[in-house]
Amino acid sequence: MFEWAVELFPHCRSITGPGLRTTLNYFQNIVPELQIHGIASGTQVFDWVVPQEWRIKSAKLTDPNGDVVADFADSNLHVVNYAVSVDRKLSLSELQAHLYSREDMPEAIPYVTSYYSPHWGFCLEHSKRSALPDGEYQAFIDSEHVDGELNFADLVIPGESDQEILFTSYACHPSMANNELSGPVVLIALARWVQSLDRRKYTYRFVLAPETIGAIAYLSQNLNHLQAHVIAGYVITCVGDDGGYAYLPSRTGTTLADEVAIAALEGRDLDFTRYSFLDRGSDERQYCSPKVDLPMASLLRSKYGTYPEYHTSLDNLDFISAKGLGESLSMYQDCIRILEHNEIYECVEKCEPQLGRRNLRPPQNSAGAGQPTLSEIQSNTSNILAYADGKTDVVGLSRVTGISVFDIIDGCALLKSNQLLEIAAID
Amino acid sequence: MFEWAVELFPHCRSITGPGLRTTLNYFQNIVPELQIHGIASGTQVFDWVVPQEWRIKSAKLTDPNGDVVADFADSNLHVVNYAVSVDRKLSLSELQAHLYSREDMPEAIPYVTSYYSPHWGFCLEHSKRSALPDGEYQAFIDSEHVDGELNFADLVIPGESDQEILFTSYACHPSMANNELSGPVVLIALARWVQSLDRRKYTYRFVLAPETIGAIAYLSQNLNHLQAHVIAGYVITCVGDDGGYAYLPSRTGTTLADEVAIAALEGRDLDFTRYSFLDRGSDERQYCSPKVDLPMASLLRSKYGTYPEYHTSLDNLDFISAKGLGESLSMYQDCIRILEHNEIYECVEKCEPQLGRRNLRPPQNSAGAGQPTLSEIQSNTSNILAYADGKTDVVGLSRVTGISVFDIIDGCALLKSNQLLEIAAID
Amino acid sequence: MFEWAVELFPHCRSITGPGLRTTLNYFQNIVPELQIHGIASGTQVFDWVVPQEWRIKSAKLTDPNGDVVADFADSNLHVVNYAVSVDRKLSLSELQAHLYSREDMPEAIPYVTSYYSPHWGFCLEHSKRSALPDGEYQAFIDSEHVDGELNFADLVIPGESDQEILFTSYACHPSMANNELSGPVVLIALARWVQSLDRRKYTYRFVLAPETIGAIAYLSQNLNHLQAHVIAGYVITCVGDDGGYAYLPSRTGTTLADEVAIAALEGRDLDFTRYSFLDRGSDERQYCSPKVDLPMASLLRSKYGTYPEYHTSLDNLDFISAKGLGESLSMYQDCIRILEHNEIYECVEKCEPQLGRRNLRPPQNSAGAGQPTLSEIQSNTSNILAYADGKTDVVGLSRVTGISVFDIIDGCALLKSNQLLEIAAID
Repeated sequence: MFEWAVELFPHCRSITGPGLRTTLNYFQNIVPELQIHGIASGTQVFDWVVPQEWRIKSAKLTDPNGDVVADFADSNLHVVNYAVSVDRKLSLSELQAHLYSREDMPEAIPYVTSYYSPHWGFCLEHSKRSALPDGEYQAFIDSEHVDGELNFADLVIPGESDQEILFTSYACHPSMANNELSGPVVLIALARWVQSLDRRKYTYRFVLAPETIGAIAYLSQNLNHLQAHVIAGYVITCVGDDGGYAYLPSRTGTTLADEVAIAALEGRDLDFTRYSFLDRGSDERQYCSPKVDLPMASLLRSKYGTYPEYHTSLDNLDFISAKGLGESLSMYQDCIRILEHNEIYECVEKCEPQLGRRNLRPPQNSAGAGQPTLSEIQSNTSNILAYADGKTDVVGLSRVTGISVFDIIDGCALLKSNQLLEIAAID
Repeated sequence: MFEWAVELFPHCRSITGPGLRTTLNYFQNIVPELQIHGIASGTQVFDWVVPQEWRIKSAKLTDPNGDVVADFADSNLHVVNYAVSVDRKLSLSELQAHLYSREDMPEAIPYVTSYYSPHWGFCLEHSKRSALPDGEYQAFIDSEHVDGELNFADLVIPGESDQEILFTSYACHPSMANNELSGPVVLIALARWVQSLDRRKYTYRFVLAPETIGAIAYLSQNLNHLQAHVIAGYVITCVGDDGGYAYLPSRTGTTLADEVAIAALEGRDLDFTRYSFLDRGSDERQYCSPKVDLPMASLLRSKYGTYPEYHTSLDNLDFISAKGLGESLSMYQDCIRILEHNEIYECVEKCEPQLGRRNLRPPQNSAGAGQPTLSEIQSNTSNILAYADGKTDVVGLSRVTGISVFDIIDGCALLKSNQLLEIAAID
Repeated sequence: MFEWAVELFPHCRSITGPGLRTTLNYFQNIVPELQIHGIASGTQVFDWVVPQEWRIKSAKLTDPNGDVVADFADSNLHVVNYAVSVDRKLSLSELQAHLYSREDMPEAIPYVTSYYSPHWGFCLEHSKRSALPDGEYQAFIDSEHVDGELNFADLVIPGESDQEILFTSYACHPSMANNELSGPVVLIALARWVQSLDRRKYTYRFVLAPETIGAIAYLSQNLNHLQAHVIAGYVITCVGDDGGYAYLPSRTGTTLADEVAIAALEGRDLDFTRYSFLDRGSDERQYCSPKVDLPMASLLRSKYGTYPEYHTSLDNLDFISAKGLGESLSMYQDCIRILEHNEIYECVEKCEPQLGRRNLRPPQNSAGAGQPTLSEIQSNTSNILAYADGKTDVVGLSRVTGISVFDIIDGCALLKSNQLLEIAAID
């Protein structure tokens, strides 16, 4: 995954245009089944209109001495993303309204966008901006906005059921790593892993689109289907560093996606930060909006908006790691494992079954030496049987017994193979 | 309001009789639409019987030296309220069973009543009582209990809906200020303000009656109507001083009246004491009783029973203030504002609407200089839209988002005027 | 009760056999209505098969010097309960796999069983085991397993209703006192007390059976009846010492048995330990299992597994006391008192009734001398009336008002006798 991030890092992505397309094509080379779609500029999608494509060739800000202050060739963050073209001389004080820097992060180039209001601007280090001499500057941006299409990609991997688990991330951020190349690369790696599974109870859907407008465009084309089929989903974002774990709930915080996310983290004894839906900031804004209302949560590492390097040139390849990406992939694989095994079990027997003759408990009630030891799975059997009432799913059994959801899954499998549990009939 | 309190303070009110009538008439002069009703002595009202009118001319307790120990003319609190007449010489030790004072408040005349058990007595400062010489005392009370009527007043101000908001207070306390002239004067001021409103969604009912027996009499005549129409109500009492705020819940603590009361206090960032219904002591005892069960709560300042001056001559005009009365009026006006705007809104659009082109959010995703600032109302729009699901009322939106209910009201109005919210159809 | 425990202590009880029968017969002598039942060896009871009877005559472990290391005649705990016979010479190292001791309790003989796996063994003090010399030992156990029956006893005391309150304990433990002679003796004393009551609203069922297999056998014969009739029940165990009180909930923790148990302890202001159902270990494992699901909780003193003497020879008659047994009996009598009085009351009157004329409150609103005092029962009347809404039972009234359940019972009786409360009609 880290290699993919390295190769994709330099491209100047935006909500439309060649950088986005290159990125989607790159992933299609990895997963050929990924389908790339386009929706024409000017198309109405709910309350929005699909914007034109943005194509930028070069951009440069030159100071009165002819020295280059900011060059698109050095970093695509130097130019306000989606900026209109300009070729103009202007004084420093005129220029200030078109400059963006972060006083609190003087060595970082900030990431600024202006998608829906025609504007141009340069972003630069605050240390450099403070030292700019008076005089006449040359602002040059060679960009164009042309009719074309907004692109996004999806991949549907069928399972036994047509109920779907949905994963989504976004591919519109230019040269930044945690936010956001980490989401797309983990999503693609997760899709490959799902493809490799022998058996899938559920159908899996993976979506890569530009943030906000792409999610809205995707939903405008697929809403009815998604509302009818998606039982849980996740927005994968900010999963590249190896800092702490974090959970951002769905709007209600009570969906299956929420329960599974928490069970996954707690099942591995991972410390994690619990955010509120009020802290949201990515595509759950669309997927969880009232009239869409899909059961979507997020598991993250260092969340957007909470780390100093966020939305600057310092959110670079040094900020993420192969280890961080790998752990995040595991975390989402755990969610899938839980979802696939989240049955509602029911005891077969009335009263406790005789575990001893099935080697599921020690044969003697012994306080001392000579007592056979049992695996942890076996010692959980009584508690699983006590709550397997035909109404409680695996995640619920974990919550009520305090046993890791993964041990519940193993314990239920052991009890089912001993004919002591069966899957409850659905009413 | 303070002027009204000053003028009404000297009158000797009781649960029946001229003092009560004078007080109701005084308020009718201010609000001519106020209707004064009478219910004849001897009438059965639920478990109770309307008592006779109490009329007192004078009362005096004279010590062995002929000095006046307590004179009704100085303070009507000197006589046990509703006392029978007496004209009798008796020794100090015989007299003691008819004297009331407060050892813990030696300079205060306590307020004592004996409505349903014929009795006479004098109330006086404990300091004075302790110094009473032995010898023969003259106890003289010129009062009578005669058939007449129990009076109460109400005022109904119609609105667009016949659903009612009910406010009630009581006018049976003699010369005390916080408990209780503050309640009646705030109630009358609130009624005048409601009359002045351009538009009223709800019908408003204001009731002034003697405590307990008056409330019971009023309920006995209006119970079916009130149960069918009242959606929220408040017992206004102890609202005259400018101490802290307090909330006394309804019996269940979960009615609309409760939710609005809490939203009003929290919406102004007011610290307040949260009492239990077990701490009740005023007419919520009747209005919230199981077979009446109206949705009534109370917002108070220094609550009856919690301040040392309570039920003594020290609860006088110095204890209350124009500022305190004014703040309490505002507090109840806030409740009305919230009730009138407590709609259930629903998003018009699927997904988030495009706030930028409506000037409801900054046009750029910018971390630095040049970022347009937005009013707080605008910055709340996203959170309002995220929870406007057609099921959550304005008070609920405030609770779930943590935004002041007043900002929710303003935000909803702004979004409605932008065609982004609509009032949800009632199922 | 303590005398009964003294007499029963020496018998070698097990899950079947003469020791169990002797114990049941002993109790039948005290309560002749107790019925003793048998179920034949080999009978299938749910997932289990009734085991053969175990009959043991003698057992002795002799060391190389001919000294007796452990003798069944000294303590029946010396032999693994339900052990097969043996008569064999073997070296100390061969013997070790058949010895049981507790390093942490070097002077205690541990209690070890091997019901469902044929095995023999001796239990002894760890201090003695550590000092055993090398050489040839003689292990001798004269026991047999023969077809016979598993015995249990029950007693049904009819009441006005056929709804049942169930109490159960177990009589399979050999010479140990708190766990478990205390449960059976308290159960029998409780049964005698229930028999002596003038009036019983409910039918009472008392069950004494071997733990686990006996409970399963009893349930296999009575499950449909119990599920249709039992509204609350308790597993009586570990109730002999005078340590702290403890509560072990039912599986859900929300049954009537739970509510009453907590109300009983709180109503007497008793401190108690609140266990989780995950801490269970006695016959609630069967009675609360998902497909049985009876509303059963436990009130205990020092709970099994929590005191050092547990399951050793030190859980002897010194560990329990007449005082402890008596307090535990009272605790369960309190549960019965609460259950018998746990009506749902409803106010007769609309609004508060006039308590003064019924001498249920002071006639005067007086702050000082001369105020009649009222009993605590009377002072609770207002709060009872405020919540007697025809939906809240006596236990619920206690919870919502914070008044002891016993004062609620007394208060409701007083108000009912004054025609102010009536029992709510069942919908």
